[in-house]
Amino acid sequence: MSEESWFDIPSGSDFSLINFPFGIISHPELPARHPAVAIGSHALDLQVFAQGGGFSDLPELLPVLEVFHQETLNDFAQLGRPLHAKVREYLRLVFLRDTPFANRLRDNKDLQAKALIPLSRVQMHLPLRVGDYTDFYAGKHHAYNVGVLFRGAANAFQPNYTHLPVGYHGRASSVVVSGTPVRRPWGQILDENKSPIYHPSKRLDIELELGAFICKGNALGSPVPISQAEEYIFGYVLMNDWSARDIQAWEYVPLGPFNSKNFATSVSPWVVLADALEPFRTEGIENETQLQSYLKPQSSNEAFNIDLEVSIQAQPSQEASIITRSNARHLLWSFPQMIAHHTVGGCPMNVGDLLGSGTISGPDAGSRGSLLELSEGGTRKVEISGGSRTFLADGDDVVIRGWCTNEAGDRLGFGECRGQIIEALSQ
Amino acid sequence: MSEESWFDIPSGSDFSLINFPFGIISHPELPARHPAVAIGSHALDLQVFAQGGGFSDLPELLPVLEVFHQETLNDFAQLGRPLHAKVREYLRLVFLRDTPFANRLRDNKDLQAKALIPLSRVQMHLPLRVGDYTDFYAGKHHAYNVGVLFRGAANAFQPNYTHLPVGYHGRASSVVVSGTPVRRPWGQILDENKSPIYHPSKRLDIELELGAFICKGNALGSPVPISQAEEYIFGYVLMNDWSARDIQAWEYVPLGPFNSKNFATSVSPWVVLADALEPFRTEGIENETQLQSYLKPQSSNEAFNIDLEVSIQAQPSQEASIITRSNARHLLWSFPQMIAHHTVGGCPMNVGDLLGSGTISGPDAGSRGSLLELSEGGTRKVEISGGSRTFLADGDDVVIRGWCTNEAGDRLGFGECRGQIIEALSQ
Repeated sequence: MSEESWFDIPSGSDFSLINFPFGIISHPELPARHPAVAIGSHALDLQVFAQGGGFSDLPELLPVLEVFHQETLNDFAQLGRPLHAKVREYLRLVFLRDTPFANRLRDNKDLQAKALIPLSRVQMHLPLRVGDYTDFYAGKHHAYNVGVLFRGAANAFQPNYTHLPVGYHGRASSVVVSGTPVRRPWGQILDENKSPIYHPSKRLDIELELGAFICKGNALGSPVPISQAEEYIFGYVLMNDWSARDIQAWEYVPLGPFNSKNFATSVSPWVVLADALEPFRTEGIENETQLQSYLKPQSSNEAFNIDLEVSIQAQPSQEASIITRSNARHLLWSFPQMIAHHTVGGCPMNVGDLLGSGTISGPDAGSRGSLLELSEGGTRKVEISGGSRTFLADGDDVVIRGWCTNEAGDRLGFGECRGQIIEALSQ
Repeated sequence: MSEESWFDIPSGSDFSLINFPFGIISHPELPARHPAVAIGSHALDLQVFAQGGGFSDLPELLPVLEVFHQETLNDFAQLGRPLHAKVREYLRLVFLRDTPFANRLRDNKDLQAKALIPLSRVQMHLPLRVGDYTDFYAGKHHAYNVGVLFRGAANAFQPNYTHLPVGYHGRASSVVVSGTPVRRPWGQILDENKSPIYHPSKRLDIELELGAFICKGNALGSPVPISQAEEYIFGYVLMNDWSARDIQAWEYVPLGPFNSKNFATSVSPWVVLADALEPFRTEGIENETQLQSYLKPQSSNEAFNIDLEVSIQAQPSQEASIITRSNARHLLWSFPQMIAHHTVGGCPMNVGDLLGSGTISGPDAGSRGSLLELSEGGTRKVEISGGSRTFLADGDDVVIRGWCTNEAGDRLGFGECRGQIIEALSQ
């Protein structure tokens, strides 16, 4: 039986009483960026809420309320997971029909009017200032499918794949918030004769990923043991690691993807706190390889049961077409394993660092997380309303959605991670 | 004929009247980090100098003197190259024997006493706050040598190598200033049977590189034309991109180096301004490949004639042994080419970003920029005082030095980029 709120939370909203994701907003009354949580179809402006005494019944937070006057969530993240959990639980209680803190918001119409802002009136911004961004490759079905296309079935998995979470350093400066248009990149691609030409990418692609933001730092030279890795995870977002496959195929040997990735990586604006996802733990893909001690999982439930889908809308007059349905459980490696591996040699994590899961493809044809896989390397058309695609066309509006549902029917959603392709610069 | 100073600049100093490199210092009288320039055996404390009216004859700088109250050089860098050049020229005039600005320092003993601090009394810090760090692979002899070792002579150069400046995104959080100890990393390496084991790296190596810091940003989606790329370069440092070769060999396929590199990258503390290096331009390695338009060099003199050497000191009781002598001209790609390529798809650069050249090996056996090459993949011992090396031993103190000399005999040096290997953590 779901709990009820005094506030009007539309049925089926991503931002229900079991969620309370954090983001950075601005709006006409308060144009500087600052934190908020999403609830139903509204943002609760945390700067206004705090100023209005909203947190008066959470004494531990009072000495650090300046975290809600910052342009990013980094300072809030740095408070640590135990306090994040308390703030989220407090906000849940504030919104309960029979809230113990009725004076804070339910019975304070003035503060409601100032602090609860329709999402249609807020602009979302990048939730954290990203220090370093790392993209892993933990989607086993994806790694297999791409391996087959790039190197053939016999060499699909590299020998290291099941021994360590393969990853690479991405480009932090091009991590952008959902809604930011993505310009088709120029670069070097191969023509029909396998000669390099300078041309806009012809094989612009999506990558359906889950991202995790870091809320705790480790010192240079001090690895994070896997048993402590959960403490480092602030929360999760949907991620689209836009990829130019033709640029990638030419550039990636021997040092990995570079310009094929660094033109944009989009993240959804609302960070679902790590604690909010706890009830949705499930098993990931079983790894039959004998793992090194530092990578041994702490439990068998280190993945999350998050339904994921990707849609493409070709034109405003067309319907959006869902091109893939996947689930975040299709990962071989967990985020704690990624953190343990990333730091095993002493690499420092900082608050605001972003880790991507890698593309999350399911085992079936309809659950592939990239057009490269869906189109089988560009050889098969993917039908959408108003046409078909092998790779993205200019004007395509791509949306990733993700959500969990519990047995009571409550929905915890991520909102959307959106990006529209705009035409390449003219030369 | 060299110019002379009223100040005692030791003969042969790296920090002569033709240099004036910028760094971040702290010292007992002013323990907060702040900017300085190096001159002879001293740091000129720019915060103190500015407060003492030192810049009174440079009116353009007066509105922005707060840049010398910052913990990094980012704000100074952002002022742009034309103003950097004016500040450097002004400081040169201040130190000339017949300075036109005698009251500023030469005849102001009080300010001299406060602002000129022996280098032995200052602590150096990371000069800029690094946003993103990218490491290129522009050392052609190095790429060839390593290619032979990893893939054999027939495949030494990948097909893309002469068509584009191959590079990868590095880890900004582990860029450290010279003098920071480097702990031997644990990681996955292969044993004699080619099975992965969890072990401290046995093949810890150096990479002799030149680094460039960025002083200007471009917007997402807006490439930097090669004709404008010089405006983006603040200055240069020596760089040691420490590498764990055994970790690298196992992890790097298919997404490139990761833990083999992200445990530490050291940079020299004094940034030699781009303008200071102008007189030392020379030809790099000729690229016979027909280049795409966006990579066409602006002149034939886009490399720098910087002598480079690497030494290892095994123990305090032993002499340091020079293991390689190379030169920064041994690069196939220039920094403007790297910037043009990095941004061609729209990737944003930010002030403080760091670009590494890749390992600079010369054509001869004695000019190789890594132990991997010097030891021919670990098969040949490199003799040093007190022993021999294939790869680095715990306790090894590694120093990179670099300098230019003009026809008048003036020396422009980078100081040193130093790091000592400390033993791996016990498990």
